[in-house]
Amino acid sequence: MLNQLKEMNPLIHCMTNMVVTTYTANGLLAIGSSPVMAYAKEEVQDMATAAGALLLNIGTPSVELTEAMILAGKAANKAGKPVILDPVGAGATAFRTDICHQILKEVDVSIVRGNAGEMAALVGMSGVVKGVDGSLDGDKQAVAKKVAEQYSCVAVLTGDVDTITDGERLYLVSNGHEWLTKVVGTGCLLGGVVAAFVSTVNKSDYAEAAAYAVSFYGAAAEKAYDKTKNQGYGSFAQDFIDQLGLLTENEAEQLRKVES
Amino acid sequence: MLNQLKEMNPLIHCMTNMVVTTYTANGLLAIGSSPVMAYAKEEVQDMATAAGALLLNIGTPSVELTEAMILAGKAANKAGKPVILDPVGAGATAFRTDICHQILKEVDVSIVRGNAGEMAALVGMSGVVKGVDGSLDGDKQAVAKKVAEQYSCVAVLTGDVDTITDGERLYLVSNGHEWLTKVVGTGCLLGGVVAAFVSTVNKSDYAEAAAYAVSFYGAAAEKAYDKTKNQGYGSFAQDFIDQLGLLTENEAEQLRKVES
Amino acid sequence: MLNQLKEMNPLIHCMTNMVVTTYTANGLLAIGSSPVMAYAKEEVQDMATAAGALLLNIGTPSVELTEAMILAGKAANKAGKPVILDPVGAGATAFRTDICHQILKEVDVSIVRGNAGEMAALVGMSGVVKGVDGSLDGDKQAVAKKVAEQYSCVAVLTGDVDTITDGERLYLVSNGHEWLTKVVGTGCLLGGVVAAFVSTVNKSDYAEAAAYAVSFYGAAAEKAYDKTKNQGYGSFAQDFIDQLGLLTENEAEQLRKVES
Repeated sequence: MLNQLKEMNPLIHCMTNMVVTTYTANGLLAIGSSPVMAYAKEEVQDMATAAGALLLNIGTPSVELTEAMILAGKAANKAGKPVILDPVGAGATAFRTDICHQILKEVDVSIVRGNAGEMAALVGMSGVVKGVDGSLDGDKQAVAKKVAEQYSCVAVLTGDVDTITDGERLYLVSNGHEWLTKVVGTGCLLGGVVAAFVSTVNKSDYAEAAAYAVSFYGAAAEKAYDKTKNQGYGSFAQDFIDQLGLLTENEAEQLRKVES
Repeated sequence: MLNQLKEMNPLIHCMTNMVVTTYTANGLLAIGSSPVMAYAKEEVQDMATAAGALLLNIGTPSVELTEAMILAGKAANKAGKPVILDPVGAGATAFRTDICHQILKEVDVSIVRGNAGEMAALVGMSGVVKGVDGSLDGDKQAVAKKVAEQYSCVAVLTGDVDTITDGERLYLVSNGHEWLTKVVGTGCLLGGVVAAFVSTVNKSDYAEAAAYAVSFYGAAAEKAYDKTKNQGYGSFAQDFIDQLGLLTENEAEQLRKVES
Repeated sequence: MLNQLKEMNPLIHCMTNMVVTTYTANGLLAIGSSPVMAYAKEEVQDMATAAGALLLNIGTPSVELTEAMILAGKAANKAGKPVILDPVGAGATAFRTDICHQILKEVDVSIVRGNAGEMAALVGMSGVVKGVDGSLDGDKQAVAKKVAEQYSCVAVLTGDVDTITDGERLYLVSNGHEWLTKVVGTGCLLGGVVAAFVSTVNKSDYAEAAAYAVSFYGAAAEKAYDKTKNQGYGSFAQDFIDQLGLLTENEAEQLRKVES
């Protein structure tokens, strides 16, 4: 799947938050896709139509940006391109939860990627979200399943073990490393990487492509940790970009820890 | 003080400029706090109330953002949380100086962190600010004292020697390295680090916590310079994040160069 | 020319896109200039007047930002300071092409820096732009010449070989490395580096200074590649900042590959 991505070099239209733009773009370049950021309502429809996938990340939300996201999302829908929603901080403020509901109402979202607290907030299950890193007691698989069913999408609930489901198929991914939580934007970049991989397959394969993306991403993090564990978070953040570019399809296959 | 910070893992609400968001977030994660960026007037009151401290950095200012900062600042005041103002470029344009005065009038600011030129601009003392790196002849301690007294706050005036005062107590910190001036956002991140440390103490200890933060920060820079002096500014920028995560309470104590 | 830049330490007013602000600032600091970002219409005239050069990069455009760019550009014109336009994604959407035309109509632009597709879009020659990385069949020199003549500016058309012309003089620069295309913002930072170098010379020498800047930049990339080719794109991105700070005037002279 990775080789196919590199060959297709898909254009990924990112409407993401202002904290993670650079890191998202560099990660997407490293894996062999072509990121473009565009936010203005005057151009997002053109860009979303031209792109292979659209990423909507509400990490630094505003009313104006939400309107532009919905315009872009509808254009992507019309063009048959996958839309990935990252509901950063849903549940942390009512404003963010409302924006997510508005987007999910107006746009046919293909994938939702969030942590347990954010995903729970989308389906009215109580959770505690601290900043953008949520934690939740209870059954993460049940939350993911509810998101998938309620919004007819693939749910990608990330945590120690990542849960991917379309409501029927279930993938549990154990790749990754906790140092990812010490670098800002790693969750957001994962949303972009998922977008890149799903842009290369048919809709019926979105769940599998998402699981592949999450495992690939986690495997790169494991390699980065092995290399930089004696250095620190700054070195890890940089080396992770190295590894996203170096990791091969074969190696990703060998490191893959996915139950389904 | 560092161990307490790591244990409390405070949420720091950053309303900072668009040049330094990533670096600020990664630095705050490294020391053990939890950064969140939120700018929209619809949510900043909720976020500031939930957070342990609020950072207002006017590095890329706008009228709309100023309004949101004042809303957030008032909410933080009401919730009894410290507000840290970083008056980036005050004195460089009238617009920035005016914004600072507006914030200082409407919000009870706990800490102001700036260079000599910026601090001088806040209290009507002439200075020359070149870009965001100001220089000033005259007595920096007098300027810091005037800021502290005029705005009933702790003044953190950074430079070769950093001056911290609440108008009565005075701390002079000699930690740090000039390579910090070759990496964008190191002053801005310091504002965030000060916010994180003061969020863990009572108001009467803000000056001492700020002095601790400035010394800790400078010590991490010294370590980063020792490690990367034969490499360059890019390596220093990254290694500094490593060191912010690696520096221990004991080591910070040993490296501490604070006169009071 | 580099030594002169370091001695003058010019202030470069950057109105650039939100993806590349940090990298642009760190690159400009590394070479010895002093970057400042300012976007609000209330202050851009003051900042552009005070600065040594103004960079207008439309990578994440909006109507409001365009208005501010035109205000800043006119102020720079009035103050006799060079204006550098980076038409990111011109041709990719009508919105971006229109913004460029608007700026070029209202502001006396000194330098335009873009890839082949973007430059072609500015002068109505058909091209295909994929994301922000354009490709174009046909004669790049002809496109550059047309841009230079139509807008009475220096055209800097970057690609495998970089073409710099003011319509009469022609410089072909072979420095650089393709890994630059795997790191976001390297084209944008080049616009800033060109701004820094042209700010140190008279208008009649803009073309030569731009060619010097492009060669210097490419030489630093070659050194960074030599050092990090076994590591990856993340390491290259960081080491490139190191090399921008380390490269000396003599070394740049030795590595220089410019035909004219």
